[in-house]
Amino acid sequence: ARPKVGYFYTGNANQNIMLQKISNIKIEDIMSLPIVVNDQTTLYDTIVTLFLEDVGTIYVNTNGSLSGVVSRKDLLKSIIGGSDINKIPVGMVMTRKPIVTIRKNENVIVAANRIIEYEIDSLPVIEDFEDEGKIKQRVIGRISKSNITKLFVELCKG
Amino acid sequence: ARPKVGYFYTGNANQNIMLQKISNIKIEDIMSLPIVVNDQTTLYDTIVTLFLEDVGTIYVNTNGSLSGVVSRKDLLKSIIGGSDINKIPVGMVMTRKPIVTIRKNENVIVAANRIIEYEIDSLPVIEDFEDEGKIKQRVIGRISKSNITKLFVELCKG
Repeated sequence: ARPKVGYFYTGNANQNIMLQKISNIKIEDIMSLPIVVNDQTTLYDTIVTLFLEDVGTIYVNTNGSLSGVVSRKDLLKSIIGGSDINKIPVGMVMTRKPIVTIRKNENVIVAANRIIEYEIDSLPVIEDFEDEGKIKQRVIGRISKSNITKLFVELCKG
Repeated sequence: ARPKVGYFYTGNANQNIMLQKISNIKIEDIMSLPIVVNDQTTLYDTIVTLFLEDVGTIYVNTNGSLSGVVSRKDLLKSIIGGSDINKIPVGMVMTRKPIVTIRKNENVIVAANRIIEYEIDSLPVIEDFEDEGKIKQRVIGRISKSNITKLFVELCKG
């Protein structure tokens, strides 16, 4: 049996240039800008934002802190279910906590694993901030299957 | 300058075990089952199929041959635009030719490049068949950013 440490094959280092390279890539190196709306935003405005920004997932804030996530799938489902998209706020249809997240200094392999494990399209990249003595989380980035696929393409170019 | 052939770094072969591995992976090794509907299917039934099969893109056939592609985004857009989802057939809102496709014996790097270049979520894997003297294409698979992300995770496990 060959020795393993976490995800990294620990054989002859010279034989694994690509893995070494990947193990040095952090979330902040490849993350995209997050698209965030307030929880009172109507479904209609949320959908318009989704098209304008051309993203698959939108993050939702309540008082400046991450409170939920809403995907194209969630929006389609609520419309099919008969929601009045001009009246219902996104806060009523979003997926609430526990939200699967990641931090900017984590490794990109951790993100890819988490996306596959939880069967989601993207992870919000969060950081802590203090608000009236409480620790809350704000969204500072987004990492998706698109970021991973782009990285794969770049790495294969050598 | 280091020599390049296509996407593959052609330096010391021993130093690029991972790239060598990737260059041997074909579409048919990692593709998923395609979800296909007939062009007369209503938008409502297409959306239901999309949820039941949990895919982001559905391929559309006309007389057994690939004629279009429809995504969650296309469906959201047509609903927002006021389409009667119980009456309109998917053939009226799908994206028509030229459809970006791939074949089962092509390399996985070609697929990843094509997905990024055309900014799409998935590629239908097609093969030719003869119908009344004409060469047509049928869909035999689907390759998406999910497949690429899963492959990335597997490769990083060593």
